[in-house]
Amino acid sequence: MLYTEMNKEELTAEKALLEEQYEEFKKKGLNLTMARGVPAPEQLDLSINMLLHCLDGDYKSKSGADCRSYGVLDGIPEAKELFMEMLGVGADEVIVGGNSSLQMMYDTIIRAMQLGVLGSEKPWCRYDSVKFLCPAPGYDRHFAMCEALGIEMITVPYKEDGPDMDEVERLAASDESIKGIWCVPMYSNPTGITYSDEVVRRFANLKPAAKDFRIFWDNAYCVHHLTNDHAHLLNIIEECKKAGNPNMVFEFSSTSKISFPGGGLAVICASKDNIDFIKKQMAFQTIGFDKLNQLRHAKYFKNFEGVTEHMRHHAAIIYPKFEVVLYNLEKEIGPLGIGKWTNPKGGYFISFDSLPGCAKRIVELAKGGGVVLTGAGATFPYGKDPNDSNIRIAPTYPSVGELLQAMVLFCICVRLASVEKLLAEK
Amino acid sequence: MLYTEMNKEELTAEKALLEEQYEEFKKKGLNLTMARGVPAPEQLDLSINMLLHCLDGDYKSKSGADCRSYGVLDGIPEAKELFMEMLGVGADEVIVGGNSSLQMMYDTIIRAMQLGVLGSEKPWCRYDSVKFLCPAPGYDRHFAMCEALGIEMITVPYKEDGPDMDEVERLAASDESIKGIWCVPMYSNPTGITYSDEVVRRFANLKPAAKDFRIFWDNAYCVHHLTNDHAHLLNIIEECKKAGNPNMVFEFSSTSKISFPGGGLAVICASKDNIDFIKKQMAFQTIGFDKLNQLRHAKYFKNFEGVTEHMRHHAAIIYPKFEVVLYNLEKEIGPLGIGKWTNPKGGYFISFDSLPGCAKRIVELAKGGGVVLTGAGATFPYGKDPNDSNIRIAPTYPSVGELLQAMVLFCICVRLASVEKLLAEK
Repeated sequence: MLYTEMNKEELTAEKALLEEQYEEFKKKGLNLTMARGVPAPEQLDLSINMLLHCLDGDYKSKSGADCRSYGVLDGIPEAKELFMEMLGVGADEVIVGGNSSLQMMYDTIIRAMQLGVLGSEKPWCRYDSVKFLCPAPGYDRHFAMCEALGIEMITVPYKEDGPDMDEVERLAASDESIKGIWCVPMYSNPTGITYSDEVVRRFANLKPAAKDFRIFWDNAYCVHHLTNDHAHLLNIIEECKKAGNPNMVFEFSSTSKISFPGGGLAVICASKDNIDFIKKQMAFQTIGFDKLNQLRHAKYFKNFEGVTEHMRHHAAIIYPKFEVVLYNLEKEIGPLGIGKWTNPKGGYFISFDSLPGCAKRIVELAKGGGVVLTGAGATFPYGKDPNDSNIRIAPTYPSVGELLQAMVLFCICVRLASVEKLLAEK
Repeated sequence: MLYTEMNKEELTAEKALLEEQYEEFKKKGLNLTMARGVPAPEQLDLSINMLLHCLDGDYKSKSGADCRSYGVLDGIPEAKELFMEMLGVGADEVIVGGNSSLQMMYDTIIRAMQLGVLGSEKPWCRYDSVKFLCPAPGYDRHFAMCEALGIEMITVPYKEDGPDMDEVERLAASDESIKGIWCVPMYSNPTGITYSDEVVRRFANLKPAAKDFRIFWDNAYCVHHLTNDHAHLLNIIEECKKAGNPNMVFEFSSTSKISFPGGGLAVICASKDNIDFIKKQMAFQTIGFDKLNQLRHAKYFKNFEGVTEHMRHHAAIIYPKFEVVLYNLEKEIGPLGIGKWTNPKGGYFISFDSLPGCAKRIVELAKGGGVVLTGAGATFPYGKDPNDSNIRIAPTYPSVGELLQAMVLFCICVRLASVEKLLAEK
């Protein structure tokens, strides 16, 4: 029976029942964090050999550079090659960096603020205000970065196949202080959607008021398929070239969820002109990133096939966890009409939308029961979900056993919060 | 006989002789770079085992953190401990970063420009101009960084025991847009001098006009002794505390010339309040640096004794190279009165001062003979040596055999450029 069709008495009885279940659950003393998209220990074990054996006695890049020493700002060629095939770019369209793509994004924006990007009339910090478009729900660290750097955020809603492009086009064209937009175009964080070809082409054909507008294309999950039924994403760098806007996009990715979150490789891709410009700025910041780690990755994965095969092992570990979440939601929440959720083909998240006004309460209840979820609102600019309904479920880190328990709790919490809400409205 | 006492005929004859030697030397076809302070391949071989064996099966920090995964922004405790003893700071006064201290300096300054430091009334970029004091000759990358970030540089001369502190005190107190000073306090790049206790104490007791003034203390060579006759440097962080200026200094160091230039660890040290402030800013840039590399270093070196012992092996390789340079300068240049040079107890450089107006010509001649030196002027702000006399000699990378040849050429070039100069003045 749909909760929305229950009368006050029925809801009150349901509430009492759920409160009892909740109190009963608390006795388990569960203590689990599902707040972030973190690979499980078993996933980290997949590429252990890389560390131990693949650099045995040979520290030279095929370019001749000694990877132990200084230099090679844009990365050794064999590390570039891994990403070139993964992202469909040329050797002069990529810089392989350190262990964090977040750091490459932050550095790109703070340099833009302080110095400008290719084609800027002046550094962004010389404008009275700098604004970014933020399709939401989105990645909380993107939004936090804007806030930390004093960039005003304008929320753009999502449609089924990507951001609302009518809004993106209208806003980008309306104001030259709008300098960028955040995108997680494939297996998006947290919704799991992949931008359609039409959306990507409309991005490539944007006519922003700001001549130095940039699309920040965080392609974090480009090879992170959950099953053989892959999503497909158009190559934005290619499409921007075709559209005559070759310099409008910065694409980021990393091996954080391929090899190691703490010891992987990050990458920025863009047009050759953009990359040349970035390298000129970057040469004052560092002489080069960790080439030994670049060489380790290149030797271990060998090529894009090696990466692709490796990702199948990751999927084998994490897909069952997505199944556990979806099974429980369908069984416990589906018949009650108190939530919607995504069924992603890849990535690290399931996005859950509760009845309006319930997300904070659900997260609070879950915490009381021993499961820490991503803070409600975190997926929106300034941490403010206008409907207080979106919750990001990150199922990868717990074991299947833990997750089974956590989902029992989660469903109790969703039901209880919904009943409380509906009762308050009676 | 001193060149300055030669008459025109004697100088002309000497010039002809030197030109003949120079042309003869060119026939060797030497091709050598001595432009930068780069460890020799033999030095990089010293710590090879670190990479191969020390992470065998154990990826946990003693804090319990899995070093393969996300987190631990300020570095794992065992990596901190290496630096705490090396630099005399507490666990809450240090952040262990990635592979580049230059990057930590750049990031610190660009954040200061964009966001300010602890105690800033406003971000530095909101001032009409931002200025740094630059004791010179100094490290060219410090100066290049200022120039790239639009920071005006004010040159301060060096004395025997450090920067001219009368000038530093006077300038720092004179203008609140003077926000910082660059220092390489131990085995300075390029002069090799170590700041005296009095100089360090005067630094700690500075009364700058800017309340958010910072000393950028690049202690890159703190354990890089050449012999057992060590220089001694006072602990600036300690002295700043004693002087009631605990937040006035940022100290940087790295293992670039301890383990690997391309795959070492960098560190920033400062007061706990500074570090807390930096961590708050830094949390938007990255989730954490490469902890696997931090664990490698901690396991390999074990403790500060391990580092100290390791540095003796480095010294055994590079000290003979310093001897080759000094021997040749004393023998070939000393008697002629056409140059002065330093005899450092550590670090990576010998600083050579030619007759005024000769440095560019010497570097040009050396290049013609097959040896690339650091560009003349590079050791001064804006690349402009007012006397055109300073040349930074970086003897570590070439083999002793190559260096013996390079020094024959260098001495010919110094003599030839000096004779040309003296003749032009006749």
